[in-house]
Amino acid sequence: MTTRDQRLNRLSLNQKTIDRCSVPQAVRECSDNDIPAIGLWREPVHETGVTRSAKLVRDAGLRVSSLCRGGFFTGARGEESRAVLDDNRRALDEAAELGAPCLVLVVGGLPAGSRDLPEARHRVGEALAELAPYAGERGVRLALEPLHPMYCADRAVVSTLGQALDIAGAFPSEQVGVVVDAFHVWWDPELFTQIDRAADRIASFQVCDWLTPLPADVLLGRGMMGDGHIDFPPLRAAVEHAGYDGDIEVEIFNEDVWNADPGVVVPTTVERYLNRVWA
Amino acid sequence: MTTRDQRLNRLSLNQKTIDRCSVPQAVRECSDNDIPAIGLWREPVHETGVTRSAKLVRDAGLRVSSLCRGGFFTGARGEESRAVLDDNRRALDEAAELGAPCLVLVVGGLPAGSRDLPEARHRVGEALAELAPYAGERGVRLALEPLHPMYCADRAVVSTLGQALDIAGAFPSEQVGVVVDAFHVWWDPELFTQIDRAADRIASFQVCDWLTPLPADVLLGRGMMGDGHIDFPPLRAAVEHAGYDGDIEVEIFNEDVWNADPGVVVPTTVERYLNRVWA
Repeated sequence: MTTRDQRLNRLSLNQKTIDRCSVPQAVRECSDNDIPAIGLWREPVHETGVTRSAKLVRDAGLRVSSLCRGGFFTGARGEESRAVLDDNRRALDEAAELGAPCLVLVVGGLPAGSRDLPEARHRVGEALAELAPYAGERGVRLALEPLHPMYCADRAVVSTLGQALDIAGAFPSEQVGVVVDAFHVWWDPELFTQIDRAADRIASFQVCDWLTPLPADVLLGRGMMGDGHIDFPPLRAAVEHAGYDGDIEVEIFNEDVWNADPGVVVPTTVERYLNRVWA
Repeated sequence: MTTRDQRLNRLSLNQKTIDRCSVPQAVRECSDNDIPAIGLWREPVHETGVTRSAKLVRDAGLRVSSLCRGGFFTGARGEESRAVLDDNRRALDEAAELGAPCLVLVVGGLPAGSRDLPEARHRVGEALAELAPYAGERGVRLALEPLHPMYCADRAVVSTLGQALDIAGAFPSEQVGVVVDAFHVWWDPELFTQIDRAADRIASFQVCDWLTPLPADVLLGRGMMGDGHIDFPPLRAAVEHAGYDGDIEVEIFNEDVWNADPGVVVPTTVERYLNRVWA
């Protein structure tokens, strides 16, 4: 049995969950609610400044569990492709400065007008080959995130944990890992087999719930744990059994959550994390 | 190379594509457009009558490629479960009378209030064990359809072709087969491997396209071939290479298609089938 403190000590608030908050506000919410870690996003970090964000987090005694996000490898070619890789290198620099152990990668969907899914998937490996050594130098892991198959056409051609592991396997584990995000992978009949296989490739573990009906904007269908259909405890146990003992990030994309008072959302996040992810 | 006639000879119009049409109207649309086969749905067949529908189809010289649908195994228990199985036996009787070689099964999602996905999946195998011998006696195959993972919670806990084959493998191939529906499986990194593995388990091959953005009602996001992101020819070739030489059903769930004049929709279906599925 783990104690409440042991559980709480592994919670990270991904700042997307309180999307209207700046980095200083999100840091304060973590401090006020005894949350020891935070997942940062590049856009709000840029608004506050990378150096200032790093200092705010450090001064508050918070760990940074991840930086979101790099990727978008599949659409670009030539000059544009070099720009995308350069931007990913900057993201790795930012992650290093922030003390984030990993940069979460959303790899991109099919290029405009293309139906060549194998080619788009091939480009992911090519981009990783460019970036992995640089990530290694910065001490930041590239965290390849399989997105739910409903985003395959327009967001991410990496759709299952098994596929992500196949791709990551070509690189050293300390350079390229994978994200296990409950929302994206909960349905997968191969999930527990692949989590077991993942072992030390697991760079990040994220939770939020699958709601029905899906909202009109399927990007925003992610709910507070307990409001949907996902059975979190067996998933959490499997990830632990595979060897992951890092932060558990709560990352919720949901208009209702975003419109609610962070003073309510954050304590609810803590309560649901303790009682739904661990129960 | 196949000729236009050889291609056309494998086309089946699933009547869902012209959802506002009765069985007599759908049969007439097939005849008027030289479509040799039709996929029927139980609800309109009941409206027309099973015996009369069978005669209409036979008199028009049409093949019936499939009957949709049975299943919905996961939610029921006890008395209700027996009623569901009885209804599936009636569906098999109807398929036999209509001359349909298979009954398409949508297995059902998580039971209300349940998050036990392994248990729901287990129930699918239990129901098939009850129904498979009866299907064999009727000469109708149960065609297990993996639905897109976005329907896992509320429509079908069978989410990949590999999973469907794992379940079907416990039964004789002539009793339980699988459906390959492009919309549901196109994203799967294991797709071509699993199609190859499927071999004579393929009971039905259905096509329609994946549109973006998904519409508010994700049940209706299926488009006319060529309007979305799916590359059909390699998929069609893989299904053939696996040994399937049966009908190719066009089944489109889409409000715009349903609201359009069948006199436009059906010729468009033929044209897109010839030029997008085969090209």
